[in-house]
Amino acid sequence: MPLTIADHTFSSRLFTGTGKYANHQQMIASILSSGSEMTTLSLRRMDLKSGTDNILKPLQKLGVKLLPNTSGARDAKEAIYAAQLAQEALETNWVKVEIHPDPRYLMPDPIETLKAVEELVRLGFVVMPYIHADPVLCKRLEEVGAQCVMPLGAPIGSNQGLASKPFLDIIIEQSNVPVIVDAGIGAPSHAAAALEAGADAVLVNTAMAVASHPETMGKAFKLAVEAGRMAYESGAGQVQHTAQASSPFTEFLKELS
Amino acid sequence: MPLTIADHTFSSRLFTGTGKYANHQQMIASILSSGSEMTTLSLRRMDLKSGTDNILKPLQKLGVKLLPNTSGARDAKEAIYAAQLAQEALETNWVKVEIHPDPRYLMPDPIETLKAVEELVRLGFVVMPYIHADPVLCKRLEEVGAQCVMPLGAPIGSNQGLASKPFLDIIIEQSNVPVIVDAGIGAPSHAAAALEAGADAVLVNTAMAVASHPETMGKAFKLAVEAGRMAYESGAGQVQHTAQASSPFTEFLKELS
Amino acid sequence: MPLTIADHTFSSRLFTGTGKYANHQQMIASILSSGSEMTTLSLRRMDLKSGTDNILKPLQKLGVKLLPNTSGARDAKEAIYAAQLAQEALETNWVKVEIHPDPRYLMPDPIETLKAVEELVRLGFVVMPYIHADPVLCKRLEEVGAQCVMPLGAPIGSNQGLASKPFLDIIIEQSNVPVIVDAGIGAPSHAAAALEAGADAVLVNTAMAVASHPETMGKAFKLAVEAGRMAYESGAGQVQHTAQASSPFTEFLKELS
Amino acid sequence: MPLTIADHTFSSRLFTGTGKYANHQQMIASILSSGSEMTTLSLRRMDLKSGTDNILKPLQKLGVKLLPNTSGARDAKEAIYAAQLAQEALETNWVKVEIHPDPRYLMPDPIETLKAVEELVRLGFVVMPYIHADPVLCKRLEEVGAQCVMPLGAPIGSNQGLASKPFLDIIIEQSNVPVIVDAGIGAPSHAAAALEAGADAVLVNTAMAVASHPETMGKAFKLAVEAGRMAYESGAGQVQHTAQASSPFTEFLKELS
Repeated sequence: MPLTIADHTFSSRLFTGTGKYANHQQMIASILSSGSEMTTLSLRRMDLKSGTDNILKPLQKLGVKLLPNTSGARDAKEAIYAAQLAQEALETNWVKVEIHPDPRYLMPDPIETLKAVEELVRLGFVVMPYIHADPVLCKRLEEVGAQCVMPLGAPIGSNQGLASKPFLDIIIEQSNVPVIVDAGIGAPSHAAAALEAGADAVLVNTAMAVASHPETMGKAFKLAVEAGRMAYESGAGQVQHTAQASSPFTEFLKELS
Repeated sequence: MPLTIADHTFSSRLFTGTGKYANHQQMIASILSSGSEMTTLSLRRMDLKSGTDNILKPLQKLGVKLLPNTSGARDAKEAIYAAQLAQEALETNWVKVEIHPDPRYLMPDPIETLKAVEELVRLGFVVMPYIHADPVLCKRLEEVGAQCVMPLGAPIGSNQGLASKPFLDIIIEQSNVPVIVDAGIGAPSHAAAALEAGADAVLVNTAMAVASHPETMGKAFKLAVEAGRMAYESGAGQVQHTAQASSPFTEFLKELS
Repeated sequence: MPLTIADHTFSSRLFTGTGKYANHQQMIASILSSGSEMTTLSLRRMDLKSGTDNILKPLQKLGVKLLPNTSGARDAKEAIYAAQLAQEALETNWVKVEIHPDPRYLMPDPIETLKAVEELVRLGFVVMPYIHADPVLCKRLEEVGAQCVMPLGAPIGSNQGLASKPFLDIIIEQSNVPVIVDAGIGAPSHAAAALEAGADAVLVNTAMAVASHPETMGKAFKLAVEAGRMAYESGAGQVQHTAQASSPFTEFLKELS
Repeated sequence: MPLTIADHTFSSRLFTGTGKYANHQQMIASILSSGSEMTTLSLRRMDLKSGTDNILKPLQKLGVKLLPNTSGARDAKEAIYAAQLAQEALETNWVKVEIHPDPRYLMPDPIETLKAVEELVRLGFVVMPYIHADPVLCKRLEEVGAQCVMPLGAPIGSNQGLASKPFLDIIIEQSNVPVIVDAGIGAPSHAAAALEAGADAVLVNTAMAVASHPETMGKAFKLAVEAGRMAYESGAGQVQHTAQASSPFTEFLKELS
């Protein structure tokens, strides 16, 4: 069963970002090798005036959906304004809401995020909020019309993986919209673990962008996400606390005699 | 760079087992979908007398190398005897040494394993010992001629993953022979994590065999192992403890004005 | 340096709860042996009408401050009402705000909690909010006048310990009010770890109440909390990744000769 | 029930070491504040010739048993020689066997350790071997007469805590001699966790010696070890995966009306 957000169906469950790459060529090559069908970008990286951005065109041509984000916004008002600018510039009503008043850890603001999502939904946006792995907040965002929730796995850029796992499990169990794990995914194994746990997708940026070979790392994430989803669909075994005894060798010796 | 053990080169870094499957068809289908090029089997599962075992033929025909193991052996003497029987029956001088006096947790015996490996090497075997994640024992096994070391990730059948990670890291750093993580790998994400950490391969059995859909799970492990190796070769980024501040939205607003 | 909340100074950094005990005697004995100077209780456990509650009197007589909580409240309105009832019944303006719309996991609601705290502060309460380990929410609660923040360590009653550790670290670093880790503390070692990390206190209930010997467990938590605080004040060493080589024995042999 | 090793009963379950302290005064003060009744020291720190060592006398006078260790020994022969020298110098037949051929990680050698223990027991020593957390090796050491086993929690000096937990659990379950967790204990919470899991004692050195205030840290470890043991004896509750629903506030409102 593929992943559907709003009216859009994705065959890849790996979303990507455009930040922190050494250069545009590397960014484009990595995203393509990852098989990602949607990549997020902050307003800063768009040439809003000329409309002839050499970043965006190659990606769009190759069928990668652009998802503007409101990174840098410190409150709902700034985020809504950013979404509207992006809508005009990129001709999309999709937006990833990121509101983080503190520039050090870039942790999302639950109050302003809910406010922004509610208003953006009212304005007709397809809204994908980046938030803390807070099960109640996720339900509330779903109730006001968020098309998915994007709880963090760990502090952004930390590469620590699924630090918020016990809370993600609750979110996944309760959610009626897709759950996309965002932030903290530092290795393909983390991405696979998120999918194995039932997350619908992951968003990866730093781990690909800062790898020594981003293009190969993009491919690694592609495979890991597919592996994690397959494992989820195959019904993984449970953790056990004693070995299952297999017949001892002596039995074999008896059989032989 | 492919994985080489003794004179044999493997393009897959996933080794498998033949135990615990519901039936032979499922076992064969899973191993094939996993892309594994070597699978281990205990003597009990071989028809040593007739030589017309319907388990082994299909696998061998399809190019999967059979690796007899000494599972059930309680000391070096039993293991050596088992290896010799297997050599005759399967016409192979490869053997995975497993010696576990305790039937409950099937934990390997370091003393008897070293003894068996030393003797089997002297007898011309290609020896792959299953052992605790003990860095000094690994060096000693290497010194007496083991062709690889197979430290456990977690108690066998526990599906707990890389519980022994801090010790595996030391083993990987110090080893001059391939390091194959065996036991405990309960999900594709665990396998990917082992490869990301620099392990040369993993051996997976229970997690595939007890999945609701073993064939799909085999494919999932195949992809995860490839992903983990690619990530290792791509040079993954380091864990960081603060977010890398990106330019705030206000800067963007300034740029616009 | 002792812990001060509002105008009250505590020499114990262990707060307790009154729920889930087998009987009143056990509850009282455990709280006393724990050295806790404040215990929280839900309205349900108070005899609001008679005022002659045999639970409360023994505790108050022995100098344990009672902290009413709003457990069971599903929104800010219910929490405020509960706080006011408690104020009248217990003659205290202290309140622990707990708002959890979902009865299954009892996860706190960030939006309604902020709303309730703001209003209760305005009404003159000393407000201690139980919340998710969300760094931005903690700052906002501090800004509206919460006297401390009570982020959860793990899902309530789960005994899983400091699952939210990476986020608690950020909260502790940023907070100007005491940080009290609440929920998830399942063993004295968890409590010690919270204090070692710089938390100002912990609140423990389930782990004491469901122990086979709650009174001894109370004492265990008392010691663990003291140990954790002492370790914090002693400046613990850092995690290292290689052993510090000590002089080899051969050197000693040389010295001898 | 106190801890007994050979014919000696200890009321403290915290053993200590004498290395890495800034000076003797600090070392002595820390050990005393920790309540430890036995401390280990390597031959290098003893004045074997004069017999008037100013390190040893104060400790012995204060009732702290000295446990010579064979740190630096690279094989059984060196360890046995070191034990015999120590026996003469310190007039004790107790010895902690440490054999680590690799000076970088100081990981113990299972083969040489077993050999040394067997011979030292034969020679009448009370032998306490420092080893990997290897359940089978522990059984073998017990069988040849080790008076206890001292499995490592994590690589020595790493302060990483109970990295070997799944294996320690098996060792504790199976052992007929005391299990003393050695190496890796980096904080009082780690020590408490070891005792909670059923370890009979811990040995702590680095974490105390490198603290900014070793004497306070010694006290912290004392309390943590007591807390962990009490918790073990109190029967800690189990990890649960959903909250235990308490009656909702609405019920209370009904009760009131």
